Amino acid sequence: MFIPIPHCIMRNIKLILEYDGTNYCGFQKQKQHNTIQRELEKALSRLCNEPIRVTSSGRTDSGVHARGHVVNFTMSRTLTKSNIIKGANSYLPKDIVVKSVRFVSASFHARFSARRKIYQYHLWNAPVRTPLRNRYCYHYIFPLNIADMKKAAKVLVGKRDFKAFCAQGRKKENTIRHLRRITIRKKGYLITFTFEGNGFLYNMVRNIVGTLLLAGRGKLFVSDVKKILSSKDRMQAGPTAPPQGLMLMKVLYI
Amino acid sequence: MFIPIPHCIMRNIKLILEYDGTNYCGFQKQKQHNTIQRELEKALSRLCNEPIRVTSSGRTDSGVHARGHVVNFTMSRTLTKSNIIKGANSYLPKDIVVKSVRFVSASFHARFSARRKIYQYHLWNAPVRTPLRNRYCYHYIFPLNIADMKKAAKVLVGKRDFKAFCAQGRKKENTIRHLRRITIRKKGYLITFTFEGNGFLYNMVRNIVGTLLLAGRGKLFVSDVKKILSSKDRMQAGPTAPPQGLMLMKVLYI
Repeated sequence: MFIPIPHCIMRNIKLILEYDGTNYCGFQKQKQHNTIQRELEKALSRLCNEPIRVTSSGRTDSGVHARGHVVNFTMSRTLTKSNIIKGANSYLPKDIVVKSVRFVSASFHARFSARRKIYQYHLWNAPVRTPLRNRYCYHYIFPLNIADMKKAAKVLVGKRDFKAFCAQGRKKENTIRHLRRITIRKKGYLITFTFEGNGFLYNMVRNIVGTLLLAGRGKLFVSDVKKILSSKDRMQAGPTAPPQGLMLMKVLYI
Repeated sequence: MFIPIPHCIMRNIKLILEYDGTNYCGFQKQKQHNTIQRELEKALSRLCNEPIRVTSSGRTDSGVHARGHVVNFTMSRTLTKSNIIKGANSYLPKDIVVKSVRFVSASFHARFSARRKIYQYHLWNAPVRTPLRNRYCYHYIFPLNIADMKKAAKVLVGKRDFKAFCAQGRKKENTIRHLRRITIRKKGYLITFTFEGNGFLYNMVRNIVGTLLLAGRGKLFVSDVKKILSSKDRMQAGPTAPPQGLMLMKVLYI
């Protein structure tokens, strides 16, 4: 179904991806490691019959999942949306899928145009692990006080310098982010943390979760969380929660 | 924590298991194949320091999952419930877990004492697959009419001879079962079939699902399902739905 068009016209295409990150070394392309980006570019290059490089809304770490990761890319061939989605998915491995395709204006940039992102972190807070949720939950055996975690989370909501929650060894010029909300919901043994913000530093969500867990166990108080934030020192915050609990839910563009 | 007791006393113990069946050749022990029973007996034998053989409420097929599979076994050693659960889970692989332990009377038999079983079958009814549910859903792309499936399901509820829905090549004396209910629920792309009955024949749930899917596509009508049932011929019913969508939810004892 190729409709010939003048080959100087490049179309800008936005994709929404879902993937199970268990078997990948994160999103971003790396030499010698299998990543989502590598698989995606391989599939799209095959589909478009030209080398394709995608622009991503951001990175996800090794083992992190996504329900709504956004990328864009340009291609010279004209394919229908339906052909792109079917073609890409037939070339992609089973644990990665293109959920939706949109033709967007040339100015659309998956990273720079992004306004907000929503992440969720899932915790299985029970004495016994759950094989049916192992892949998408962090099994945490210690009892947690949800009200205390909510109080601690409140400290972090707003426009803050999150340097203390950014992975060590990364020199980011600007560590200020606007965290719009943190919600914590408990349903049976499952605890879901939802984070919405204009952007997130490397490991920021997992470091915040690790810190909130200490608050939930009574090992940190609201005043401690305030101190951690103002210290701007990663060593003061809690440990990094493991990757399998984290999921990129949505990237919002306005 | 071993409390010595006269070794003629055998304790009967009921376990509830959860497992991800993806990597196993079903529940029942087989030579040369990895099964849930084999892993479980290995773990319990190690824990109890004596050879343990479990009695199961039933079998599950290769790739089928369980949220509440019940077994029982007897052991001569006295361990607390907490020691059994912690010990067994430390020896079991990550995709199998003992969720609960109960000391039961000598007359309790996981299979013969079972009164009812509840199974669920999960379907992802969307044009595009879902990597995050791949392991626990059957991806079915054809549009389905839920009301038609419900009508067809009604024909099968009650005390019926389910020979037409029993895997071929098995000569069971009695193929009559009492199917208490089939409910079909749709939430977004996810369709959940729930089956409750006093017992199920080999592949019965998956064969019924395969038949209901044909009804949902308008390829079979209520009258056809009635004919299939009365034919007692497996060749008349729909295809066997794949195993990953099936989950043993609960075994009820009264």
